[in-house]
Amino acid sequence: MADKTDKKLLEEITPIEEDFAQWYTDIVKKAELIDYSSVKGCVILRPYGYAVWENIQKIIDNMFKKTGHSNVYMPLFIPETLLNKEKDHIEGFAPEVAWVTRGGSEELTEKLCVRPTSETLFCEHYANTVKSYRDLPKLYNQWCSVVRWEKTTRPFLRTREFLWQEGHTVHATHEDALEETLRMLDVYADFCENYLCMPVVKGQKTDKEKFAGAVATYTVESMMHDGKALQAGTSHYFGDKFAKAFDIKYLDKNNELKYCFQTSWGISTRLIGGIIMAHGDNRGLVLPPAVAPVQIRIMPIASHKPGVLEKAGELKNRLEEKFRCDIDLTDTSAGFKFAEQEMRGIPLRLEIGPKDIEQNQCVFVRRDTSEKITCSIDVIESKAEELLNLISKNLYEKALENRRNKTFTAKNLDEIIEIAKTSTGFIKAMWCGDEKCEVILKEKADISSRCIVDEDHISDTCVCCGKKADKLLYWGTAY
Amino acid sequence: MADKTDKKLLEEITPIEEDFAQWYTDIVKKAELIDYSSVKGCVILRPYGYAVWENIQKIIDNMFKKTGHSNVYMPLFIPETLLNKEKDHIEGFAPEVAWVTRGGSEELTEKLCVRPTSETLFCEHYANTVKSYRDLPKLYNQWCSVVRWEKTTRPFLRTREFLWQEGHTVHATHEDALEETLRMLDVYADFCENYLCMPVVKGQKTDKEKFAGAVATYTVESMMHDGKALQAGTSHYFGDKFAKAFDIKYLDKNNELKYCFQTSWGISTRLIGGIIMAHGDNRGLVLPPAVAPVQIRIMPIASHKPGVLEKAGELKNRLEEKFRCDIDLTDTSAGFKFAEQEMRGIPLRLEIGPKDIEQNQCVFVRRDTSEKITCSIDVIESKAEELLNLISKNLYEKALENRRNKTFTAKNLDEIIEIAKTSTGFIKAMWCGDEKCEVILKEKADISSRCIVDEDHISDTCVCCGKKADKLLYWGTAY
Repeated sequence: MADKTDKKLLEEITPIEEDFAQWYTDIVKKAELIDYSSVKGCVILRPYGYAVWENIQKIIDNMFKKTGHSNVYMPLFIPETLLNKEKDHIEGFAPEVAWVTRGGSEELTEKLCVRPTSETLFCEHYANTVKSYRDLPKLYNQWCSVVRWEKTTRPFLRTREFLWQEGHTVHATHEDALEETLRMLDVYADFCENYLCMPVVKGQKTDKEKFAGAVATYTVESMMHDGKALQAGTSHYFGDKFAKAFDIKYLDKNNELKYCFQTSWGISTRLIGGIIMAHGDNRGLVLPPAVAPVQIRIMPIASHKPGVLEKAGELKNRLEEKFRCDIDLTDTSAGFKFAEQEMRGIPLRLEIGPKDIEQNQCVFVRRDTSEKITCSIDVIESKAEELLNLISKNLYEKALENRRNKTFTAKNLDEIIEIAKTSTGFIKAMWCGDEKCEVILKEKADISSRCIVDEDHISDTCVCCGKKADKLLYWGTAY
Repeated sequence: MADKTDKKLLEEITPIEEDFAQWYTDIVKKAELIDYSSVKGCVILRPYGYAVWENIQKIIDNMFKKTGHSNVYMPLFIPETLLNKEKDHIEGFAPEVAWVTRGGSEELTEKLCVRPTSETLFCEHYANTVKSYRDLPKLYNQWCSVVRWEKTTRPFLRTREFLWQEGHTVHATHEDALEETLRMLDVYADFCENYLCMPVVKGQKTDKEKFAGAVATYTVESMMHDGKALQAGTSHYFGDKFAKAFDIKYLDKNNELKYCFQTSWGISTRLIGGIIMAHGDNRGLVLPPAVAPVQIRIMPIASHKPGVLEKAGELKNRLEEKFRCDIDLTDTSAGFKFAEQEMRGIPLRLEIGPKDIEQNQCVFVRRDTSEKITCSIDVIESKAEELLNLISKNLYEKALENRRNKTFTAKNLDEIIEIAKTSTGFIKAMWCGDEKCEVILKEKADISSRCIVDEDHISDTCVCCGKKADKLLYWGTAY
């Protein structure tokens, strides 16, 4: 079926086995997720890319609301003195912020940074509004863009500006705040696994890798097709560190003044990069049905024949009741249409032609497996639902299988260096907890610690120094 | 019923008749719509204020999607050279933009402005992506924040950063683009009148008042309680001005290269200021049901009595199926609860106590009229719907009545100066079209032109110079 144009559309993608990075870049452009602009390090989210983000937002915002959170909006700018209030926080962020120094025609007396994250603004607001135990907890979230002045950038994975959500909560006790930190980590894990079909490893970051200003950072780490790790979401426990720096206190039931305890947590548009690299193939994007802007594309075959377009329209009207659905009415060849639908990762294609209509049937084609399923027109809704569920399950299973195949175990330094040299994947190894060993491994094996996990221990000695170890650490190469 | 605390809550609002500006400021704080921060000229949108914005977004985004628009996201920054490409545009915006001059540890070689509006970015993208008539029209919209370095600021009405949507479209012909400009003006008018219950005057801005870079700007102007005008939304027709500056061309069906025609249109969080000033009263905010975060608040009366809380919960479960609804379970007095519900402008209160339960009834109280309506528990859903509709209708009618009472007609210069001196409202007057007359009126009567409307003419001579006039202009004092 394919004509010259189709071949061109396909030829332009670099094979995934040949150059994974170029394959990725080809897809983000060819699937029309993003475009570049003259703003260095920033990208444009085109309608198709933004629609994926809107679907992510809808699902997870609903999960936030079910867990009691409200959305707010804080200013884009942070005055320098405010940013400087928490020592570890500013040390972490100062090197990578953008500064506004002029407003209108005047030089500002105090420069303003464009928010890289909004802890300081939330803290100031909490200090103003939290007075009594009755005001607690405050469970806020914000959808916005943040700016970090990165030197090397890649669409979705690392850009100078990116879209995200940042949750910020304030609690009466240590226990409440820690519970919230872990609850939101679970929300992220649930979202990644059950909606994005991306299995995750849940764990705690080492002190070296934790968020600037946090007491503890928890993470969900996902493995990409090439064996590299993607930090998909993080949840931070702050203890009362920020509360002390910003003087956030409340009167408890006994009328005693106490410091509050806080958390923050975030996911970003880098999840779209994760979707591409976890599920994509040589024909392009493969989108998880839950976030696909179009879940079913109807393709009229021989659409000039009488009745075909009418029937296609009728099927669309029925499917639209339950699914995000469109019809391809462009005047290109069938081959081009198929290639385009596959490039865009639309989970299901429904083909309907004159012969199908005669037999009261249509053909579903799965994007993930290319399997063709003939289906009576009477039951398209239930069949579509079944197939979309099967696709979600299959994407998850394939990603899990990939992770299983690329997860290794190392017991000593030679082993871990050897594995890191020959394979890209997760390496599980025991760790004594000493940052020196973490640094040695990073230098000698060129891998970074991903997270400390709660799994069966491999041994009781550190993979690096051989001393007693009670932490099981995942290692990997990260995006 | 009111105890000391209630009085305090009420006393703190300045009466609307005494000081409208202070009344407004009191409401935005007391209804917990916003909070101030150390970021000068910017405000925090608190959960209640942001929830109103989320409801506005949901409704109008749906209207945008129904008219064929897709959402995108453009970078926050605009390089100076890009901003400078269209002469009138840069002249209008240069004096009020914020400039980023440092990124990380380095001085930028080219300064970046924080977007005050994104025409230039959209134009650059359209120049890259529009090639053929097949690519047209492109109907994009963006939800984001923009920054304008205002000297004097007021919550919602004028802040250095504000949230808005900006639609940007590109078309093959003049006719298509003009039709789009007027279509979106109609969408805004529909939204303001039918969802925000704010009647609007639709018209065209004079050249003096049009958007920087536009060929024509259309506006919906609404009158506030105090007679001042609020520009609620604007829709701009650009002709091919930007297309020529940015070289946006397409190949038409005859393979001829042609310039595109463009539009842009926007509404912002200032609509929330409009809602406050159009409908609020001395008890606080009065929210239009369509955008109220809580449409019905259930108040259990004598909630310690057996069965009251259970029944209240049961009613909530039923009402939640159709309405945004909550129960006040705080341990404050009934008077305080009522005052708080009224301050927040919740359209309906449902009171349910032991005697009501005995009689299988409850009492609805309308926020707008304070009317109490006894209702059988069997029909609370239909009664609530009926009452919410009546409230919407009444808010609209009251605002329209206010506008009727404060709309004047002037035939000559003395008349218009006299009216402007003694009343605040809309003044309808004929205009010859000469900017000199517009400037004279602005100086002598301290009013500004709102829009040229398509209504029956008052006379055929200019209110200012007495020469022949064929334009009917609305004048007013604007927020």
